Amino acid sequence: MPDFATWTAEQRARVERALSDWVPVDAPAGLGEAMRYAVLDGGKRVRPLLVLAAAEAVQGHAEAALRAACASELIHAYSLVHDDMPCMDDDVLRRGKPTAHVQFGEAQALLAGDALQALAFELLTPDGDAVPPAMQAELCRLLARAAGAQGMAGGQAIDLASVGKPLTEPQLRAMHKLKTGALLQASVDMGAACGVGVPLAARGALRDYGAAVGLAFQVVDDILDVTADSAELGKTAGKDAAADKPTYVSLLGLQASRALADDLRAQAHAALDASGLHHTGRLRALADRVVERSN
Amino acid sequence: MPDFATWTAEQRARVERALSDWVPVDAPAGLGEAMRYAVLDGGKRVRPLLVLAAAEAVQGHAEAALRAACASELIHAYSLVHDDMPCMDDDVLRRGKPTAHVQFGEAQALLAGDALQALAFELLTPDGDAVPPAMQAELCRLLARAAGAQGMAGGQAIDLASVGKPLTEPQLRAMHKLKTGALLQASVDMGAACGVGVPLAARGALRDYGAAVGLAFQVVDDILDVTADSAELGKTAGKDAAADKPTYVSLLGLQASRALADDLRAQAHAALDASGLHHTGRLRALADRVVERSN
Repeated sequence: MPDFATWTAEQRARVERALSDWVPVDAPAGLGEAMRYAVLDGGKRVRPLLVLAAAEAVQGHAEAALRAACASELIHAYSLVHDDMPCMDDDVLRRGKPTAHVQFGEAQALLAGDALQALAFELLTPDGDAVPPAMQAELCRLLARAAGAQGMAGGQAIDLASVGKPLTEPQLRAMHKLKTGALLQASVDMGAACGVGVPLAARGALRDYGAAVGLAFQVVDDILDVTADSAELGKTAGKDAAADKPTYVSLLGLQASRALADDLRAQAHAALDASGLHHTGRLRALADRVVERSN
Repeated sequence: MPDFATWTAEQRARVERALSDWVPVDAPAGLGEAMRYAVLDGGKRVRPLLVLAAAEAVQGHAEAALRAACASELIHAYSLVHDDMPCMDDDVLRRGKPTAHVQFGEAQALLAGDALQALAFELLTPDGDAVPPAMQAELCRLLARAAGAQGMAGGQAIDLASVGKPLTEPQLRAMHKLKTGALLQASVDMGAACGVGVPLAARGALRDYGAAVGLAFQVVDDILDVTADSAELGKTAGKDAAADKPTYVSLLGLQASRALADDLRAQAHAALDASGLHHTGRLRALADRVVERSN
């Protein structure tokens, strides 16, 4: 059994290869180039790692898990492309490179994001028997709900509407539960959906794990926005504060935010202990990584 | 058996009710309002009618067909919202109303489009046994391929890259095959996929029908852009010519474009004759309607 660092490196390399195979080189009129730019060679791949770790916990279908891992990353990548556009956050730096609209123009960036979302669902529905049809359908269901109006897109709408407004902690939590939490949680759920005959209680425990890790990720993001610099982050640091966006740090302060992240990690670990599953080591280590990361 | 006008009115009303039920009223921060604005009370519903007519031809699963009909319209509606944005076609009038970004701002329009795409896949994957899981998976596969880089989004990328450039007729055809043809064809394919045990030859014939109708639709669009006024169209007339976009009319002239549309209608009818299916009357009449429409 490889240690966590080795496993992480191996899984990232698998995901990178698979994305490179699946994101088209030959899409018309430069669209493929823009899509690949937005997805390849960058990012921490947190969502794919969550899918793959959850699939390992339930001894899930390997091909389905790899496709789900890539699909969740495609949704994440498309959301970044659109989020960076001038009409949204108007950001120029992402993963240490110019953002997609800076590189390719706004229209191409818009289309590339749109095509990445469609590609996510295409990856989940291969022809033939590579993935059982019922598993394909469940994976699409989980991803579509997490990406849509009651998930990520809804969270972004709240985010837009919240600039310059004071939010209470419950309101901030509700926003992040959708904006980043829904897709992180769906990543865990999709990994779990790659298993066959997983007990309902275990699925529920993994859902609790995903909720805790999803929120922890955002709290740490808010902390890093204040404490890290742009070079470390690969994106513009301090931009939430500059944009007068409510964050955990602005609401609770740095120390209480760190305590909250630690508490959420403990909740995630407790959910794994309660799951009755045996192969939860990767998920446990991922919760640690999410809280301890420096970018 | 109701006549075609009655059938069309009934099916449109069914689709309208279903969309109104399924496009969320309560999505956060006004997002649901923007989504509903972009989808409800407007449009010819050509794609839903193609889905439902094809499903009728194969005596398909009713619930699956209604969901597929709405899903294809959601993809169409999202593409219009994004296509109208300032960085794309920069249009202010659609279906006789201000475009979504004029009404709600660019950021909200961008998010509404994104959320409508996700909702399409959510509609195709209901919980439980309302639609057989293998049918859910196939419908998602057909729709994702038609919407993505090798379909509609790819066609839009070619369109963007073609402004002000001379295209040959084969190049124009290749663009439209993706930009509008892919989703129209997928609508027919999705309707066919709601059948069980449909012979492969019949599926192939319906695919030929969809290809012919899809291209005919675009040729007629180009004709109407020149011959109709904005009030009839519910969108800005003459804008392709104004934008120096290649069209069938600019390439072939009006008379040859009309002849091409008639020829494509004949091809569509011939494909139905070759299908071996008995209930193709609605599809036949839809091909007529696509060619004879005035808006």
